[in-house]
Amino acid sequence: MSPRPVDAVIAAARDFLGERISTNQALREQHSRGEDTTTPTLPDAVAFAGTTEEVSRLMTLCHQHGVPVTAFGAGTSLEGHVNPVRGGISLDLSRMTAVLEVNQEDMDCLVEPGVTRHQLNDHLRDQGLFFPVDPGSHCTIGGMCATRASGTNAVRYGTIRENVLGLEVVLADGRVIHTGGRTRKAANGYDLTRLLIGSEGTLGIITKVRLRLHGIPEAISGAVCQFPTLAACVETVIATMQAGIPVARIELLDEVQMDACIRYSKLEGFSALPTLFLEFHGSPAGVAEQAETVEAIATDMGGLGFAWTADAEARNKLWKARHDAYWACIALRPGSRGIATDVCVPISRLAEALLGAKEDILASGLTAPIVGHVGDGNFHTVILVPEDEPDALERAWALDKAIVARGLALGGTCSGEHGVGLGKREFLEQEHGIEALAVMRGIKASLDPKGILNPGKIFRN
Amino acid sequence: MSPRPVDAVIAAARDFLGERISTNQALREQHSRGEDTTTPTLPDAVAFAGTTEEVSRLMTLCHQHGVPVTAFGAGTSLEGHVNPVRGGISLDLSRMTAVLEVNQEDMDCLVEPGVTRHQLNDHLRDQGLFFPVDPGSHCTIGGMCATRASGTNAVRYGTIRENVLGLEVVLADGRVIHTGGRTRKAANGYDLTRLLIGSEGTLGIITKVRLRLHGIPEAISGAVCQFPTLAACVETVIATMQAGIPVARIELLDEVQMDACIRYSKLEGFSALPTLFLEFHGSPAGVAEQAETVEAIATDMGGLGFAWTADAEARNKLWKARHDAYWACIALRPGSRGIATDVCVPISRLAEALLGAKEDILASGLTAPIVGHVGDGNFHTVILVPEDEPDALERAWALDKAIVARGLALGGTCSGEHGVGLGKREFLEQEHGIEALAVMRGIKASLDPKGILNPGKIFRN
Repeated sequence: MSPRPVDAVIAAARDFLGERISTNQALREQHSRGEDTTTPTLPDAVAFAGTTEEVSRLMTLCHQHGVPVTAFGAGTSLEGHVNPVRGGISLDLSRMTAVLEVNQEDMDCLVEPGVTRHQLNDHLRDQGLFFPVDPGSHCTIGGMCATRASGTNAVRYGTIRENVLGLEVVLADGRVIHTGGRTRKAANGYDLTRLLIGSEGTLGIITKVRLRLHGIPEAISGAVCQFPTLAACVETVIATMQAGIPVARIELLDEVQMDACIRYSKLEGFSALPTLFLEFHGSPAGVAEQAETVEAIATDMGGLGFAWTADAEARNKLWKARHDAYWACIALRPGSRGIATDVCVPISRLAEALLGAKEDILASGLTAPIVGHVGDGNFHTVILVPEDEPDALERAWALDKAIVARGLALGGTCSGEHGVGLGKREFLEQEHGIEALAVMRGIKASLDPKGILNPGKIFRN
Repeated sequence: MSPRPVDAVIAAARDFLGERISTNQALREQHSRGEDTTTPTLPDAVAFAGTTEEVSRLMTLCHQHGVPVTAFGAGTSLEGHVNPVRGGISLDLSRMTAVLEVNQEDMDCLVEPGVTRHQLNDHLRDQGLFFPVDPGSHCTIGGMCATRASGTNAVRYGTIRENVLGLEVVLADGRVIHTGGRTRKAANGYDLTRLLIGSEGTLGIITKVRLRLHGIPEAISGAVCQFPTLAACVETVIATMQAGIPVARIELLDEVQMDACIRYSKLEGFSALPTLFLEFHGSPAGVAEQAETVEAIATDMGGLGFAWTADAEARNKLWKARHDAYWACIALRPGSRGIATDVCVPISRLAEALLGAKEDILASGLTAPIVGHVGDGNFHTVILVPEDEPDALERAWALDKAIVARGLALGGTCSGEHGVGLGKREFLEQEHGIEALAVMRGIKASLDPKGILNPGKIFRN
């Protein structure tokens, strides 16, 4: 029996990775999927890279031998991105955690891909700067770039797409390229940076990221407003956006999610009603003015009082509760798994999308709280799948499909921020059309002719 | 002698374009270059498309016959983009001028590529919306997308890149794709929209554009501040950006440009000194606060008074003068041609880049006022080339090269917003590296295997 190609890669990579390439069973299991509900697949080996050069040498080997490579960061993906469905190497970049540069005057920094958003913000705090993109997990910057992540601040500061100036990327055959630059804008050839952001490890391995940073605002205030109906809540969001209020965050929790958060995070003084959490950034006078304007809108729409605070502790408690929303959902049905949907629609269709999703949830008989980055028209339902209900998983997927189908019919997308991975592949053709998907495949073939980079993701083939 | 391939295209296209495909000499001359200083090249024919279907049928023919196609909009390109250097068809899209949709609630619209930014803003005005991207010419939206244009508002509202939601594009072989969508964000596969923006007609023909719009601010105020030195002027810009003031516009005019504008636009009460023009958008209290903060910064830096006004007429006069800066330059030396440089650097290096450019200009013996979108680190010099000085053009190109070389050495780009076209090709390899350029060429080959789309642009080959 001839040796497997992957064994040749492992043997050769040992020269420069030593013990950092491993076939240890427990390690392979840890790299068999992310925080998703896909069926785990073991990689043949796990490699921990420490430098760009190591990534380049490993890719050169894998390219020579035709061995699949799946990049792995914090493993927090929800769509199966890090599941190495065709085996090969799981390339773990989570040990590349250096913050290489911070340029205070230019408000940018250069980081390795394994830096987490929390680590970066801790690093930046005493320089008066922050990095705004905040998915709900302890994810890495590299992973956020790969999946085109966003979060609660995107409504004001943009997604990762708007906050990356340039990348260092190792190509499928080991060549290293640099994309973008240090300037805030450029009209200098094809935008490879934006092409790689959201490419989910299928076009190259990101080894350095230059990020745009923002000044910590002089004043921050938070607000909460509860509403008698979901419709009133959504109308307040639409009117706020149309008025051009530069809200930093505007998050919606439906009555089920609010009930879960009140219990889980011990929020006092709130009812289980549709609720908006808001945050305002600016000067002291500016944040007060923003809050007053939104309060007037909310009152018009039937809002039940508008509680706002400049107190950091009270504000942090609220946002901690918001970020713990997923765990609060799970606690509603202990022992459940959660499947997160991720539809995003034009804001004018948000009420229809949300109210339709509510109807689907009721019809499904499942529990599925709704929480959303509604300023961007993006919302999630966390569909709870009790382990002791054998048909619940099937019903959950049917519910997910129904919510996506409505989102697409309303001019939306199947993925606002979680990416395609394995879970959303089936919707892509409907969303983009067969010819646009063919263009994407052509680009994939151009950059990765042997198809070794995260095969099986984005495209069904 | 066998007929030329282009004659076969012209004959076949007559079926559906009729008189709108023409070999008229005057028309061909009008389509032989843009507002650039390249050597004009005549296309074999000029085709005026009216619909996506016509573009698709024409591309199908050109693909079959291997005939080059160069898209043409308003013809205002400064880098030779519309010069059909290999002949073939100049595909004029300027008659596709329909505003197809305006969605007030979602703040987006769908337009044909020949719509100009002026036409669109006139159309939007009574809906309380505006489109912020404003290059200094009567350019078309399609051309702005193709060249990744920006302008004076980019510091706050982003460039065209941040303001396009999706595109309809006819591929080299006539297939039609739709990219992006109607949502503010998405993580749904490769970002073809951003790939096509700035691709300068080399990857496809843009036939529809969905734009993101913005609410006309409740209050707008303008300000002007003059400084004893260029350095003090630049320091004010850097400090303003670092303080996170959301200036809508912050434009620098050096003393030569200011002198030109005072004469040309009859500005009263100003001296020929380095000057900042500013604009603030927000609530009445907000714009007042922004202006006060910038005034305090400018005063610290030695600014010579800070004149601000909420009066629309006074403000419009100033911005008209700013937009007429190019013509004011030409009027300094009547009968000159102007060559516009377009370097963009990290803002921390802006003073070096500008002061270095000033030295180069002095050494060249040429007149070259400086004007810039300095909040983005982007500035232009308009190098005046008197027609009666035979060696002036050569000296002008040497000056341009010196300014670009310094910009690149400071971590900048050779093109902030004018694009690559013919004029900046030689700098691209230095800026991106040979491997990144190879990736771009691979993508080009994937989308346009016969190389018929605007051949000779971006790449030297």
